[in-house]
Amino acid sequence: MISQDTIVALATPSGAGAIAVIRVSGKDAITICSPLFRSISGKELKKQKSHTIHLGHIIDEERVLDEVLVSIFKGSNSYTGEPTIEISCHGSTYIQQEIIQLLLRKGCRMADAGEFTLRAFLNGKLDLSQAEAVADLIASDSEASHQIAMQQMRGGFSNEIKKLRDELLNFASLIELELDFAEEDVEFADRTQFKELIARITNVLKRLIDSFAVGNVIKNGIPVAIVGEPNVGKSTLLNALLNEERAIVSDIAGTTRDTIEDEITIGGIGFRFIDTAGIRDTKDVVESIGIQKTFEKIEQAKVVIYLVDSSLLTPDSLKDLKTEIGKIKNKYPQKPLVIVANKVDKLEQNEIDHMVSEIENIHLLSAKSGLGVEELQNKLLDFVNTGALRNNETIVTNTRHYDALLKALEEIQKVQYGLDSGLSGDLMAIDIRQALYHFGEITGEISSDDLLGNIFANFCIGK
Amino acid sequence: MISQDTIVALATPSGAGAIAVIRVSGKDAITICSPLFRSISGKELKKQKSHTIHLGHIIDEERVLDEVLVSIFKGSNSYTGEPTIEISCHGSTYIQQEIIQLLLRKGCRMADAGEFTLRAFLNGKLDLSQAEAVADLIASDSEASHQIAMQQMRGGFSNEIKKLRDELLNFASLIELELDFAEEDVEFADRTQFKELIARITNVLKRLIDSFAVGNVIKNGIPVAIVGEPNVGKSTLLNALLNEERAIVSDIAGTTRDTIEDEITIGGIGFRFIDTAGIRDTKDVVESIGIQKTFEKIEQAKVVIYLVDSSLLTPDSLKDLKTEIGKIKNKYPQKPLVIVANKVDKLEQNEIDHMVSEIENIHLLSAKSGLGVEELQNKLLDFVNTGALRNNETIVTNTRHYDALLKALEEIQKVQYGLDSGLSGDLMAIDIRQALYHFGEITGEISSDDLLGNIFANFCIGK
Repeated sequence: MISQDTIVALATPSGAGAIAVIRVSGKDAITICSPLFRSISGKELKKQKSHTIHLGHIIDEERVLDEVLVSIFKGSNSYTGEPTIEISCHGSTYIQQEIIQLLLRKGCRMADAGEFTLRAFLNGKLDLSQAEAVADLIASDSEASHQIAMQQMRGGFSNEIKKLRDELLNFASLIELELDFAEEDVEFADRTQFKELIARITNVLKRLIDSFAVGNVIKNGIPVAIVGEPNVGKSTLLNALLNEERAIVSDIAGTTRDTIEDEITIGGIGFRFIDTAGIRDTKDVVESIGIQKTFEKIEQAKVVIYLVDSSLLTPDSLKDLKTEIGKIKNKYPQKPLVIVANKVDKLEQNEIDHMVSEIENIHLLSAKSGLGVEELQNKLLDFVNTGALRNNETIVTNTRHYDALLKALEEIQKVQYGLDSGLSGDLMAIDIRQALYHFGEITGEISSDDLLGNIFANFCIGK
Repeated sequence: MISQDTIVALATPSGAGAIAVIRVSGKDAITICSPLFRSISGKELKKQKSHTIHLGHIIDEERVLDEVLVSIFKGSNSYTGEPTIEISCHGSTYIQQEIIQLLLRKGCRMADAGEFTLRAFLNGKLDLSQAEAVADLIASDSEASHQIAMQQMRGGFSNEIKKLRDELLNFASLIELELDFAEEDVEFADRTQFKELIARITNVLKRLIDSFAVGNVIKNGIPVAIVGEPNVGKSTLLNALLNEERAIVSDIAGTTRDTIEDEITIGGIGFRFIDTAGIRDTKDVVESIGIQKTFEKIEQAKVVIYLVDSSLLTPDSLKDLKTEIGKIKNKYPQKPLVIVANKVDKLEQNEIDHMVSEIENIHLLSAKSGLGVEELQNKLLDFVNTGALRNNETIVTNTRHYDALLKALEEIQKVQYGLDSGLSGDLMAIDIRQALYHFGEITGEISSDDLLGNIFANFCIGK
């Protein structure tokens, strides 16, 4: 897997900008770039110190391609752990292409997706979970997903796993040592301490496994289905919910062509609002397909908001509303449901009182005046278990880690059972080895070419 | 116009990528960034040497925003001529925003479009025409437009103008000196040498003004109208014309919604192919609108290609074709027109012979087999006067420069007339001053806030 050749790629987003950065890494990076760079100072690039910046021109034979700044990283003091050159050129796509083409002609190879980070991993600059966090960090679009990725990249998660693994490894060695002295019936591994360690590992694994539920939704945004007919004020509600300071609103095309999702950040957490039609009784075939879709979306959502225009509520429609709410509650008794009465600013107090008495826990809101908006934001945040986030605890967001943790827990529970039932050391040693294997999978101490290929294929080129 | 505050902007294209670069420039750039950066080495950023790179974290209070590389440029040794910090962070849009927000809170101001380059100009790092070339360089998308912008950025154009201006200024001083000694009737300025200089300036100005015709089309791509019915093989023709090595094909929306332009680079020159319908006689209103549009596009084009599917030519349609060609030649006698017979691979030799005898200068082509493709590329290139480009002569691409050159020429011609007719020195001095003024406009020795505002508003933010 470790290749020694020199790779090149555009590291900045594609397209035109003020500047673009082209990254070259590999044992020949400096040797290849040095003759292509004519420094203003007249000094050769390869004679410059590591971590310095130089102004000059990139020259293709006698043709000047661009005036650039070149950064030089020598030895293993770079992101990849290899000699690295970063060329900061003018951000025209033409110039980017020309410089990359020149480097390819001079012996570089186009980097594969994630290959710079793969090399950082292979050269011991990052462990595997840290390397995976780099991709998450780049994809992060809310405070929460950023915090989790940052913590993982800084080694929070790996350190916790590594510490447990080391302790377990220590016991494993002692138990395996016992096997060598099997006839003497000695116990090098203190069984009480060992039980205590297994209990501790079980706790940590369970906590990490549980954190995946919240981690996964934070990474992908929490899906919220909004049930409501057109014109009940969905878009004004979304605008009102927007956290003014740091709002990201975007339209992302959903799985079906007619589904539009709005993404909003509330309290640093991304929420994906999925618009659905109502679910009233109908004999119309087309409408009943719509209702079917509404149910599907409710199914996928973590929270359901049922939005009504309270200014249009008549005694009849209030009855219909109660029926519909009943249906949803019946079908999804576990799904958090918030009934939101919008436009309450248009109502008289007695009308409000009547509505509140008729419909349990109805949330009064005026998107226009801002009444009830903050309360709704807090309700939504309450549905996310943000405790772990606030306490800066490790949160698992990666399905691969989640799988490895589940497998490790399974093995640890076998060890636990073995300890409780006085299983022989040689059998227990096998289970411990298996658990160690799954721990190692997370940090990359155990890895295969296939696994690495899969992980880094999801990176962008240039990282 | 010169502001001393510290500006910040994203310098790399917007969107997510492996890395992004945030640029901070101004007298407080280092003071503002230093406390926000926690170096891995533990050393304070502001104590580091200029042109060095440092690994560490950007910290907002106690929150770690990202692991970054920071480049430091001290004193006037930077692009802008001011203390500058470049932060190379992970390329998530969230991180970019967070770091920029932090810098804004700590006293930076969001940079205006082109403000970094404006500062470079105001601090004497670039003259005005060089600064303008930076925007052209970033926008350049072909070898030719890149070469022209690069030459202008490296001062080729300014040096030529400055040299002439200095010589003219010298004579202007001598003539004005004569005015002080008017009663003594002396001549400090040698009239023969002066005439020779004016002739030289006239030549250079005329050459530069003439170069604008080619410069302008090179900068914007040479418009080529393709006349032809659907299915005559337009897209296979375009694909065949593509220079394999370095082709850029893109769809750019034209001025009208139904016009699609294909841009192709041939021999380093960009060509914009504008698709049009045919122009055959019709009484149909809708079709006659189409014909009107075809004529409009022919009007805008520099070259017209009339493309026919030769395998479908019958004696009748050959007659129609001759009529249509006649119409175009009548209406646009000056416009270069190439009649291209596509799919000649499907014809027998006697059919080809007949076609060639019937239609003058018909270009035989098989997009499929490649026959006649290179010849067509060369024909297209011949329509562009690439001589100046090949000889690396200065080519004017900027309308502002073109206007200033025209005005300067007008004044120089007045001076010429004054010299020929023995005009008095004081009147001639006024014309020379005017010519000098227009020269100075190009390089920015003469500039106004309005002018600078206009020029730099067309830049991207971050440059």
